[in-house]
Amino acid sequence: MDDPVLLTGAGGRVGQAILRYLGPDFEWRLLDREPLPDRKRPDGVADSDVFNADITDTGAVRAAMDGCGAVIHLAGDPRPEAPWDSVLRNNIDGTRTMFAAAVETGVGKFAFASSNHAVGAYETDTRKPDLYRPDDDYRLDGTELPRPSNLYGVSKAAGETIGRYYHDHHDISVVNVRIGNLTEDHPPVDYERGQAMWLSYRDCAHLFERCLLADYGCETVYGISDNDRKYYSIDRARDVLGYDPQDNSAEWNGDQRTG
Amino acid sequence: MDDPVLLTGAGGRVGQAILRYLGPDFEWRLLDREPLPDRKRPDGVADSDVFNADITDTGAVRAAMDGCGAVIHLAGDPRPEAPWDSVLRNNIDGTRTMFAAAVETGVGKFAFASSNHAVGAYETDTRKPDLYRPDDDYRLDGTELPRPSNLYGVSKAAGETIGRYYHDHHDISVVNVRIGNLTEDHPPVDYERGQAMWLSYRDCAHLFERCLLADYGCETVYGISDNDRKYYSIDRARDVLGYDPQDNSAEWNGDQRTG
Repeated sequence: MDDPVLLTGAGGRVGQAILRYLGPDFEWRLLDREPLPDRKRPDGVADSDVFNADITDTGAVRAAMDGCGAVIHLAGDPRPEAPWDSVLRNNIDGTRTMFAAAVETGVGKFAFASSNHAVGAYETDTRKPDLYRPDDDYRLDGTELPRPSNLYGVSKAAGETIGRYYHDHHDISVVNVRIGNLTEDHPPVDYERGQAMWLSYRDCAHLFERCLLADYGCETVYGISDNDRKYYSIDRARDVLGYDPQDNSAEWNGDQRTG
Repeated sequence: MDDPVLLTGAGGRVGQAILRYLGPDFEWRLLDREPLPDRKRPDGVADSDVFNADITDTGAVRAAMDGCGAVIHLAGDPRPEAPWDSVLRNNIDGTRTMFAAAVETGVGKFAFASSNHAVGAYETDTRKPDLYRPDDDYRLDGTELPRPSNLYGVSKAAGETIGRYYHDHHDISVVNVRIGNLTEDHPPVDYERGQAMWLSYRDCAHLFERCLLADYGCETVYGISDNDRKYYSIDRARDVLGYDPQDNSAEWNGDQRTG
Protein backbone atom coordinates (compact mmCIF):
# COMPACT_ATOMS: atom_id res chain seq x y z
CA MET A 1 0.00 0.00 0.00
CA ASP A 2 2.03 2.94 -1.31
CA ASP A 3 -0.85 5.38 -1.45
CA PRO A 4 -2.09 7.06 1.72
CA VAL A 5 -4.63 5.33 3.95
CA LEU A 6 -7.52 7.32 5.35
CA LEU A 7 -8.40 6.35 8.92
CA THR A 8 -11.70 7.76 10.20
CA GLY A 9 -12.43 7.83 13.90
CA ALA A 10 -8.66 7.98 14.32
CA GLY A 11 -8.88 9.22 17.89
CA GLY A 12 -11.10 6.38 19.10
CA ARG A 13 -10.04 3.14 20.73
CA VAL A 14 -9.83 1.04 17.57
CA GLY A 15 -8.06 3.83 15.72
CA GLN A 16 -5.50 4.21 18.45
CA ALA A 17 -4.84 0.46 18.58
CA ILE A 18 -4.20 0.52 14.83
CA LEU A 19 -1.93 3.56 14.98
CA ARG A 20 0.04 2.21 17.95
CA TYR A 21 1.19 -0.79 15.93
CA LEU A 22 0.97 0.40 12.32
CA GLY A 23 1.84 4.06 12.76
CA PRO A 24 5.21 3.91 10.97
CA ASP A 25 4.14 1.45 8.26
CA PHE A 26 1.67 3.51 6.23
CA GLU A 27 1.20 7.04 5.05
CA TRP A 28 -1.81 8.14 7.07
CA ARG A 29 -4.62 10.58 6.64
CA LEU A 30 -6.42 10.92 9.97
CA LEU A 31 -9.99 12.08 10.27
CA ASP A 32 -11.93 12.61 13.46
CA ARG A 33 -14.88 14.70 14.53
CA GLU A 34 -12.89 15.81 17.57
CA PRO A 35 -9.57 17.68 17.26
CA LEU A 36 -6.77 15.09 17.33
CA PRO A 37 -4.08 15.96 19.90
CA ASP A 38 -0.42 15.30 19.10
CA ARG A 39 -0.28 12.30 21.43
CA LYS A 40 -2.89 10.58 19.28
CA ARG A 41 -0.95 11.05 16.02
CA PRO A 42 1.92 8.84 14.88
CA ASP A 43 5.24 10.61 14.46
CA GLY A 44 5.59 12.35 11.16
CA VAL A 45 1.92 12.91 10.32
CA ALA A 46 1.68 16.47 9.05
CA ASP A 47 -1.08 18.83 10.13
CA SER A 48 -2.27 18.86 6.52
CA ASP A 49 -3.00 15.13 6.80
CA VAL A 50 -5.22 15.55 9.84
CA PHE A 51 -8.86 16.37 9.19
CA ASN A 52 -11.21 17.64 11.85
CA ALA A 53 -14.50 16.83 10.17
CA ASP A 54 -17.80 14.99 10.36
CA ILE A 55 -18.20 12.00 8.04
CA THR A 56 -21.59 13.22 6.90
CA ASP A 57 -19.81 16.24 5.35
CA THR A 58 -19.35 15.06 1.77
CA GLY A 59 -16.90 17.78 0.78
CA ALA A 60 -14.65 17.25 3.78
CA VAL A 61 -14.70 13.48 3.29
CA ARG A 62 -13.76 13.82 -0.37
CA ALA A 63 -10.91 16.17 0.43
CA ALA A 64 -9.54 13.80 3.06
CA MET A 65 -9.86 10.82 0.73
CA ASP A 66 -8.40 12.37 -2.40
CA GLY A 67 -5.44 10.30 -3.54
CA CYS A 68 -5.91 7.56 -0.94
CA GLY A 69 -5.54 3.91 -1.89
CA ALA A 70 -7.53 2.57 1.04
CA VAL A 71 -9.91 3.55 3.79
CA ILE A 72 -10.33 2.18 7.29
CA HIS A 73 -13.70 3.51 8.35
CA LEU A 74 -14.18 3.46 12.10
CA ALA A 75 -16.02 6.72 12.70
CA GLY A 76 -19.58 6.65 13.93
CA ASP A 77 -21.56 6.65 17.13
CA PRO A 78 -19.92 3.76 19.04
CA ARG A 79 -22.50 3.45 21.82
CA PRO A 80 -24.50 0.21 21.87
CA GLU A 81 -27.31 2.21 23.49
CA ALA A 82 -27.12 5.07 20.96
CA PRO A 83 -30.53 6.42 19.94
CA TRP A 84 -31.90 5.81 16.47
CA ASP A 85 -31.52 9.37 15.21
CA SER A 86 -27.82 9.30 15.97
CA VAL A 87 -27.06 5.93 14.37
CA LEU A 88 -29.25 6.80 11.39
CA ARG A 89 -27.21 9.92 10.76
CA ASN A 90 -23.71 8.98 11.90
CA ASN A 91 -23.54 5.28 11.18
CA ILE A 92 -25.89 4.68 8.25
CA ASP A 93 -25.86 7.99 6.38
CA GLY A 94 -22.23 8.61 7.33
CA THR A 95 -21.08 5.23 6.07
CA ARG A 96 -22.94 5.75 2.82
CA THR A 97 -21.21 9.11 2.41
CA MET A 98 -17.87 7.40 2.95
CA PHE A 99 -18.52 4.67 0.38
CA ALA A 100 -19.84 7.09 -2.22
CA ALA A 101 -16.74 9.26 -1.81
CA ALA A 102 -14.50 6.18 -1.98
CA VAL A 103 -15.82 5.08 -5.36
CA GLU A 104 -15.78 8.64 -6.66
CA THR A 105 -12.15 9.14 -5.67
CA GLY A 106 -11.02 5.70 -6.86
CA VAL A 107 -10.16 4.11 -3.51
CA GLY A 108 -9.31 0.43 -4.00
CA LYS A 109 -9.94 -1.07 -0.57
CA PHE A 110 -12.43 -0.22 2.12
CA ALA A 111 -12.37 -1.80 5.59
CA PHE A 112 -15.53 -1.10 7.55
CA ALA A 113 -15.69 -1.42 11.33
CA SER A 114 -18.83 -3.41 11.92
CA SER A 115 -19.64 -4.87 15.30
CA ASN A 116 -20.57 -7.95 17.25
CA HIS A 117 -23.80 -6.06 17.93
CA ALA A 118 -24.88 -6.74 14.33
CA VAL A 119 -25.37 -10.37 15.39
CA GLY A 120 -25.86 -10.11 19.16
CA ALA A 121 -29.34 -11.65 19.14
CA TYR A 122 -27.90 -15.01 18.13
CA GLU A 123 -26.90 -15.20 21.79
CA THR A 124 -30.26 -16.58 22.78
CA ASP A 125 -31.24 -17.68 26.26
CA THR A 126 -31.01 -21.32 25.19
CA ARG A 127 -27.45 -20.87 23.89
CA LYS A 128 -26.21 -18.86 26.86
CA PRO A 129 -23.85 -19.28 28.63
CA ASP A 130 -22.71 -22.45 26.85
CA LEU A 131 -21.65 -20.64 23.68
CA TYR A 132 -19.13 -18.61 25.66
CA ARG A 133 -17.29 -21.74 26.83
CA PRO A 134 -14.28 -23.44 25.29
CA ASP A 135 -15.96 -26.83 24.81
CA ASP A 136 -18.95 -25.41 22.92
CA ASP A 137 -18.71 -25.64 19.15
CA TYR A 138 -21.42 -23.13 18.15
CA ARG A 139 -19.94 -20.70 15.63
CA LEU A 140 -21.04 -17.69 13.63
CA ASP A 141 -18.97 -17.42 10.47
CA GLY A 142 -20.11 -14.25 8.71
CA THR A 143 -22.52 -15.89 6.27
CA GLU A 144 -25.47 -15.60 8.67
CA LEU A 145 -28.08 -12.89 8.37
CA PRO A 146 -27.79 -10.04 10.89
CA ARG A 147 -29.62 -10.33 14.18
CA PRO A 148 -28.77 -7.07 15.92
CA SER A 149 -28.61 -6.59 19.69
CA ASN A 150 -29.74 -3.00 19.44
CA LEU A 151 -30.29 -0.13 17.03
CA TYR A 152 -26.54 0.45 16.93
CA GLY A 153 -26.24 -3.14 15.65
CA VAL A 154 -28.97 -2.42 13.08
CA SER A 155 -26.89 0.50 11.83
CA LYS A 156 -23.75 -1.63 11.57
CA ALA A 157 -25.60 -4.32 9.63
CA ALA A 158 -26.89 -1.61 7.30
CA GLY A 159 -23.32 -0.39 6.81
CA GLU A 160 -22.29 -3.90 5.77
CA THR A 161 -25.06 -3.98 3.18
CA ILE A 162 -24.05 -0.57 1.86
CA GLY A 163 -20.54 -1.96 1.41
CA ARG A 164 -21.88 -4.99 -0.40
CA TYR A 165 -23.76 -2.72 -2.78
CA TYR A 166 -20.73 -0.56 -3.56
CA HIS A 167 -18.55 -3.62 -4.07
CA ASP A 168 -21.03 -5.26 -6.43
CA HIS A 169 -21.48 -2.16 -8.56
CA HIS A 170 -18.08 -0.50 -8.42
CA ASP A 171 -14.48 -1.60 -8.55
CA ILE A 172 -13.78 -1.56 -4.81
CA SER A 173 -12.77 -4.31 -2.39
CA VAL A 174 -14.77 -4.29 0.84
CA VAL A 175 -14.23 -6.04 4.13
CA ASN A 176 -16.62 -5.75 7.05
CA VAL A 177 -14.91 -6.50 10.34
CA ARG A 178 -17.33 -7.45 13.10
CA ILE A 179 -15.16 -6.28 15.96
CA GLY A 180 -15.51 -8.17 19.25
CA ASN A 181 -14.46 -6.75 22.60
CA LEU A 182 -11.31 -4.67 22.14
CA THR A 183 -9.48 -3.94 25.38
CA GLU A 184 -6.09 -2.47 26.07
CA ASP A 185 -3.80 -4.87 27.94
CA HIS A 186 -5.68 -7.77 29.53
CA PRO A 187 -8.99 -9.35 28.53
CA PRO A 188 -12.19 -8.61 30.44
CA VAL A 189 -12.08 -10.14 33.92
CA ASP A 190 -14.93 -12.30 35.21
CA TYR A 191 -16.87 -11.82 31.99
CA GLU A 192 -17.13 -14.99 29.93
CA ARG A 193 -18.77 -13.27 26.98
CA GLY A 194 -16.08 -10.60 26.85
CA GLN A 195 -13.36 -13.22 26.98
CA ALA A 196 -15.00 -15.13 24.13
CA MET A 197 -15.03 -12.08 21.89
CA TRP A 198 -11.83 -10.50 23.13
CA LEU A 199 -9.62 -8.72 20.63
CA SER A 200 -6.19 -7.57 21.77
CA TYR A 201 -4.75 -4.28 20.54
CA ARG A 202 -1.99 -5.97 18.58
CA ASP A 203 -4.33 -8.50 16.96
CA CYS A 204 -6.67 -5.65 16.06
CA ALA A 205 -3.87 -3.73 14.37
CA HIS A 206 -2.65 -6.86 12.59
CA LEU A 207 -6.15 -7.68 11.34
CA PHE A 208 -6.61 -4.22 9.83
CA GLU A 209 -3.10 -4.41 8.35
CA ARG A 210 -4.22 -7.58 6.56
CA CYS A 211 -7.32 -5.71 5.35
CA LEU A 212 -4.95 -3.20 3.73
CA LEU A 213 -2.54 -5.73 2.23
CA ALA A 214 -4.56 -8.83 1.26
CA ASP A 215 -6.45 -9.35 -1.99
CA TYR A 216 -10.20 -9.93 -1.65
CA GLY A 217 -13.55 -9.05 -3.14
CA CYS A 218 -16.23 -8.56 -0.49
CA GLU A 219 -15.84 -10.22 2.89
CA THR A 220 -17.43 -10.21 6.32
CA VAL A 221 -15.09 -11.45 9.04
CA TYR A 222 -14.99 -11.54 12.81
CA GLY A 223 -12.39 -9.53 14.66
CA ILE A 224 -11.39 -11.50 17.74
CA SER A 225 -8.13 -12.92 19.05
CA ASP A 226 -7.47 -16.65 18.93
CA ASN A 227 -9.39 -17.28 22.12
CA ASP A 228 -10.08 -20.76 23.49
CA ARG A 229 -13.55 -19.47 24.22
CA LYS A 230 -15.14 -18.37 20.98
CA TYR A 231 -18.45 -18.42 19.13
CA TYR A 232 -17.16 -16.45 16.18
CA SER A 233 -15.15 -18.32 13.59
CA ILE A 234 -11.92 -16.66 12.51
CA ASP A 235 -11.39 -19.16 9.70
CA ARG A 236 -12.48 -16.77 6.99
CA ALA A 237 -10.16 -14.02 8.26
CA ARG A 238 -7.29 -16.51 8.33
CA ASP A 239 -8.03 -17.97 4.89
CA VAL A 240 -8.81 -14.85 2.92
CA LEU A 241 -6.92 -12.12 4.73
CA GLY A 242 -4.02 -14.08 6.20
CA TYR A 243 -4.99 -13.06 9.72
CA ASP A 244 -2.69 -14.75 12.23
CA PRO A 245 -3.64 -13.64 15.74
CA GLN A 246 -1.10 -13.88 18.55
CA ASP A 247 -3.31 -13.51 21.61
CA ASN A 248 -5.81 -15.70 23.48
CA SER A 249 -7.93 -14.61 26.40
CA ALA A 250 -7.32 -18.00 28.03
CA GLU A 251 -3.67 -17.06 28.52
CA TRP A 252 -4.62 -14.44 31.07
CA ASN A 253 -5.71 -15.11 34.61
CA GLY A 254 -7.08 -12.01 36.21
CA ASP A 255 -4.63 -9.39 35.03
CA GLN A 256 -1.62 -11.70 34.70
CA ARG A 257 -0.56 -13.35 31.46
CA THR A 258 -0.20 -17.09 32.09
CA GLY A 259 0.74 -18.42 28.67
CA MET B 1 -57.70 -11.51 12.59
CA ASP B 2 -60.57 -9.76 14.38
CA ASP B 3 -58.68 -6.55 15.11
CA PRO B 4 -58.20 -3.97 12.37
CA VAL B 5 -55.30 -4.26 9.95
CA LEU B 6 -53.31 -1.16 9.06
CA LEU B 7 -52.26 -1.05 5.41
CA THR B 8 -49.69 1.61 4.55
CA GLY B 9 -49.15 2.66 0.96
CA ALA B 10 -52.77 1.60 0.44
CA GLY B 11 -53.10 3.51 -2.81
CA GLY B 12 -50.11 1.89 -4.48
CA ARG B 13 -50.05 -1.12 -6.75
CA VAL B 14 -49.43 -3.74 -4.08
CA GLY B 15 -51.97 -2.15 -1.77
CA GLN B 16 -54.60 -2.13 -4.47
CA ALA B 17 -53.94 -5.78 -5.34
CA ILE B 18 -54.44 -6.68 -1.69
CA LEU B 19 -57.62 -4.64 -1.32
CA ARG B 20 -59.11 -5.96 -4.57
CA TYR B 21 -59.11 -9.50 -3.20
CA LEU B 22 -59.17 -9.05 0.57
CA GLY B 23 -61.25 -5.88 0.84
CA PRO B 24 -64.31 -7.52 2.42
CA ASP B 25 -62.37 -9.93 4.63
CA PHE B 26 -60.68 -7.62 7.11
CA GLU B 27 -61.41 -4.45 8.99
CA TRP B 28 -59.01 -2.03 7.33
CA ARG B 29 -57.18 1.10 8.34
CA LEU B 30 -55.73 2.66 5.21
CA LEU B 31 -52.78 5.01 5.26
CA ASP B 32 -51.24 6.79 2.31
CA ARG B 33 -49.22 9.93 1.78
CA GLU B 34 -51.56 10.88 -1.06
CA PRO B 35 -55.31 11.40 -0.51
CA LEU B 36 -57.07 8.09 -1.17
CA PRO B 37 -59.98 8.46 -3.61
CA ASP B 38 -63.16 6.44 -3.08
CA ARG B 39 -62.35 4.11 -5.97
CA LYS B 40 -59.25 3.00 -4.10
CA ARG B 41 -61.11 2.12 -0.90
CA PRO B 42 -63.02 -1.11 -0.31
CA ASP B 43 -66.73 -0.69 0.34
CA GLY B 44 -67.53 0.15 3.88
CA VAL B 45 -64.26 1.73 4.95
CA ALA B 46 -65.19 4.84 6.92
CA ASP B 47 -63.43 8.17 6.42
CA SER B 48 -62.20 7.89 9.99
CA ASP B 49 -60.26 4.76 9.02
CA VAL B 50 -58.42 6.50 6.19
CA PHE B 51 -55.25 8.36 7.12
CA ASN B 52 -53.57 10.85 4.85
CA ALA B 53 -50.13 10.89 6.45
CA ASP B 54 -46.42 10.36 6.02
CA ILE B 55 -44.96 7.29 7.73
CA THR B 56 -42.14 9.36 9.21
CA ASP B 57 -44.78 11.21 11.26
CA THR B 58 -44.69 9.27 14.51
CA GLY B 59 -47.88 10.74 15.92
CA ALA B 60 -49.92 10.07 12.80
CA VAL B 61 -48.59 6.54 12.55
CA ARG B 62 -49.46 5.79 16.17
CA ALA B 63 -52.96 7.16 15.74
CA ALA B 64 -53.53 5.02 12.64
CA MET B 65 -52.13 1.93 14.36
CA ASP B 66 -53.92 2.26 17.67
CA GLY B 67 -55.98 -0.90 18.29
CA CYS B 68 -54.70 -2.74 15.21
CA GLY B 69 -53.77 -6.40 15.41
CA ALA B 70 -51.54 -6.39 12.35
CA VAL B 71 -49.74 -4.13 9.93
CA ILE B 72 -48.99 -4.55 6.26
CA HIS B 73 -46.31 -1.97 5.60
CA LEU B 74 -45.96 -1.12 1.92
CA ALA B 75 -45.36 2.63 2.05
CA GLY B 76 -42.04 4.02 0.95
CA ASP B 77 -40.29 5.31 -2.12
CA PRO B 78 -40.90 2.48 -4.62
CA ARG B 79 -38.48 3.60 -7.32
CA PRO B 80 -35.49 1.32 -7.92
CA GLU B 81 -33.59 4.42 -9.01
CA ALA B 82 -34.66 6.49 -5.98
CA PRO B 83 -31.88 8.69 -4.59
CA TRP B 84 -30.26 7.91 -1.27
CA ASP B 85 -31.78 10.81 0.66
CA SER B 86 -35.26 9.64 -0.23
CA VAL B 87 -34.78 5.97 0.65
CA LEU B 88 -32.92 6.92 3.82
CA ARG B 89 -35.87 8.97 4.97
CA ASN B 90 -38.87 7.16 3.55
CA ASN B 91 -37.75 3.56 3.52
CA ILE B 92 -35.24 3.23 6.36
CA ASP B 93 -36.33 5.88 8.83
CA GLY B 94 -39.99 5.41 7.89
CA THR B 95 -39.87 1.66 8.42
CA ARG B 96 -38.19 2.13 11.78
CA THR B 97 -40.95 4.55 12.78
CA MET B 98 -43.52 1.94 11.80
CA PHE B 99 -41.90 -0.86 13.80
CA ALA B 100 -41.39 1.32 16.88
CA ALA B 101 -45.06 2.34 16.78
CA ALA B 102 -46.10 -1.28 16.27
CA VAL B 103 -44.38 -2.52 19.41
CA GLU B 104 -45.57 0.49 21.38
CA THR B 105 -49.20 -0.09 20.38
CA GLY B 106 -49.06 -3.87 20.84
CA VAL B 107 -49.44 -4.97 17.21
CA GLY B 108 -48.97 -8.74 16.95
CA LYS B 109 -47.98 -9.22 13.30
CA PHE B 110 -46.02 -7.06 10.92
CA ALA B 111 -45.66 -7.86 7.22
CA PHE B 112 -43.00 -5.75 5.54
CA ALA B 113 -42.86 -5.26 1.78
CA SER B 114 -39.26 -5.91 0.93
CA SER B 115 -38.11 -6.31 -2.64
CA ASN B 116 -36.26 -8.44 -5.14
CA HIS B 117 -33.89 -5.46 -5.32
CA ALA B 118 -32.54 -6.43 -1.88
CA VAL B 119 -30.87 -9.39 -3.61
CA GLY B 120 -30.63 -8.25 -7.24
CA ALA B 121 -26.84 -8.48 -7.41
CA TYR B 122 -27.00 -12.26 -7.12
CA GLU B 123 -28.02 -12.04 -10.78
CA THR B 124 -24.40 -11.98 -11.89
CA ASP B 125 -23.24 -11.98 -15.49
CA THR B 126 -22.18 -15.62 -15.17
CA ARG B 127 -25.63 -16.66 -13.93
CA LYS B 128 -27.59 -14.64 -16.51
CA PRO B 129 -29.72 -15.49 -18.38
CA ASP B 130 -29.65 -19.14 -17.31
CA LEU B 131 -31.14 -18.46 -13.90
CA TYR B 132 -34.29 -17.07 -15.53
CA ARG B 133 -34.99 -20.34 -17.35
CA PRO B 134 -37.18 -23.22 -16.29
CA ASP B 135 -34.44 -25.87 -16.42
CA ASP B 136 -32.05 -23.91 -14.19
CA ASP B 137 -32.05 -24.96 -10.53
CA TYR B 138 -30.35 -21.92 -8.98
CA ARG B 139 -32.47 -20.69 -6.07
CA LEU B 140 -32.39 -17.94 -3.50
CA ASP B 141 -34.31 -19.02 -0.42
CA GLY B 142 -34.26 -16.06 1.98
CA THR B 143 -31.35 -17.23 4.13
CA GLU B 144 -28.77 -15.49 1.94
CA LEU B 145 -27.21 -12.16 2.86
CA PRO B 146 -28.55 -9.14 0.95
CA ARG B 147 -26.85 -8.15 -2.28
CA PRO B 148 -28.81 -5.09 -3.38
CA SER B 149 -29.25 -3.97 -6.97
CA ASN B 150 -29.40 -0.33 -5.98
CA LEU B 151 -29.78 2.02 -3.02
CA TYR B 152 -33.49 1.25 -2.96
CA GLY B 153 -32.51 -2.39 -2.42
CA VAL B 154 -30.11 -1.31 0.34
CA SER B 155 -33.01 0.42 2.06
CA LYS B 156 -35.23 -2.66 1.79
CA ALA B 157 -32.51 -4.88 3.24
CA ALA B 158 -32.14 -2.40 6.09
CA GLY B 159 -35.88 -2.60 6.68
CA GLU B 160 -35.63 -6.38 6.97
CA THR B 161 -32.90 -6.03 9.60
CA ILE B 162 -34.97 -3.49 11.52
CA GLY B 163 -37.78 -6.05 11.56
CA ARG B 164 -35.43 -8.75 12.77
CA TYR B 165 -34.36 -6.48 15.63
CA TYR B 166 -37.91 -5.68 16.71
CA HIS B 167 -38.90 -9.33 16.54
CA ASP B 168 -35.92 -10.46 18.62
CA HIS B 169 -36.49 -7.87 21.32
CA HIS B 170 -40.25 -7.46 21.38
CA ASP B 171 -43.27 -9.73 21.17
CA ILE B 172 -44.05 -9.20 17.50
CA SER B 173 -44.15 -11.59 14.54
CA VAL B 174 -42.39 -10.25 11.47
CA VAL B 175 -42.43 -11.40 7.87
CA ASN B 176 -40.37 -9.77 5.15
CA VAL B 177 -41.84 -10.38 1.72
CA ARG B 178 -39.34 -9.89 -1.08
CA ILE B 179 -41.85 -8.99 -3.73
CA GLY B 180 -41.03 -9.96 -7.31
CA ASN B 181 -42.60 -8.35 -10.36
CA LEU B 182 -46.25 -7.59 -9.63
CA THR B 183 -48.33 -6.92 -12.72
CA GLU B 184 -52.02 -6.59 -13.24
CA ASP B 185 -53.43 -9.20 -15.62
CA HIS B 186 -50.75 -10.92 -17.69
CA PRO B 187 -47.06 -11.46 -16.89
CA PRO B 188 -44.37 -9.29 -18.50
CA VAL B 189 -44.08 -10.05 -22.21
CA ASP B 190 -40.69 -10.81 -23.80
CA TYR B 191 -38.94 -10.35 -20.47
CA GLU B 192 -37.54 -13.57 -19.06
CA ARG B 193 -36.48 -12.02 -15.78
CA GLY B 194 -39.91 -10.51 -15.23
CA GLN B 195 -41.59 -13.82 -15.98
CA ALA B 196 -39.29 -15.57 -13.51
CA MET B 197 -40.22 -13.21 -10.69
CA TRP B 198 -43.82 -12.60 -11.71
CA LEU B 199 -46.41 -12.19 -8.98
CA SER B 200 -50.05 -12.07 -9.99
CA TYR B 201 -52.48 -9.79 -8.20
CA ARG B 202 -54.44 -12.67 -6.73
CA ASP B 203 -51.34 -14.51 -5.54
CA CYS B 204 -50.06 -11.27 -4.02
CA ALA B 205 -53.29 -10.79 -2.08
CA HIS B 206 -53.32 -14.43 -0.99
CA LEU B 207 -49.70 -14.24 0.20
CA PHE B 208 -50.40 -11.20 2.37
CA GLU B 209 -53.57 -12.86 3.66
CA ARG B 210 -51.38 -15.74 4.84
CA CYS B 211 -49.07 -13.20 6.50
CA LEU B 212 -52.09 -12.02 8.49
CA LEU B 213 -53.44 -15.46 9.37
CA ALA B 214 -50.47 -17.82 9.78
CA ASP B 215 -48.39 -18.29 12.94
CA TYR B 216 -44.70 -17.50 12.61
CA GLY B 217 -41.80 -15.84 14.38
CA CYS B 218 -39.55 -13.95 11.97
CA GLU B 219 -39.43 -14.95 8.33
CA THR B 220 -38.07 -13.73 5.02
CA VAL B 221 -39.94 -15.13 2.03
CA TYR B 222 -40.12 -14.50 -1.69
CA GLY B 223 -43.32 -13.18 -3.20
CA ILE B 224 -43.71 -14.71 -6.64
CA SER B 225 -46.32 -16.87 -8.32
CA ASP B 226 -45.68 -20.56 -8.95
CA ASN B 227 -43.76 -19.85 -12.14
CA ASP B 228 -41.98 -22.55 -14.14
CA ARG B 229 -39.18 -20.04 -14.48
CA LYS B 230 -37.94 -19.12 -11.05
CA TYR B 231 -34.77 -18.41 -9.13
CA TYR B 232 -36.54 -17.62 -5.88
CA SER B 233 -37.71 -20.53 -3.78
CA ILE B 234 -41.28 -20.30 -2.50
CA ASP B 235 -40.82 -23.33 -0.27
CA ARG B 236 -40.52 -21.29 2.90
CA ALA B 237 -43.66 -19.31 2.09
CA ARG B 238 -45.52 -22.56 1.46
CA ASP B 239 -44.21 -24.33 4.55
CA VAL B 240 -44.49 -21.58 7.13
CA LEU B 241 -47.25 -19.36 5.83
CA GLY B 242 -49.35 -21.86 3.90
CA TYR B 243 -48.90 -19.90 0.69
CA ASP B 244 -50.58 -21.75 -2.19
CA PRO B 245 -50.17 -19.71 -5.38
CA GLN B 246 -52.59 -20.23 -8.28
CA ASP B 247 -50.73 -18.55 -11.12
CA ASN B 248 -47.71 -19.34 -13.29
CA SER B 249 -46.20 -17.05 -15.87
CA ALA B 250 -45.67 -20.07 -18.15
CA GLU B 251 -49.43 -20.34 -18.57
CA TRP B 252 -49.49 -17.11 -20.54
CA ASN B 253 -48.35 -16.68 -24.09
CA GLY B 254 -48.16 -13.03 -25.02
CA ASP B 255 -51.32 -11.71 -23.43
CA GLN B 256 -53.34 -14.92 -23.67
CA ARG B 257 -53.67 -17.44 -20.88
CA THR B 258 -52.74 -20.87 -22.23
CA GLY B 259 -53.06 -23.06 -19.13
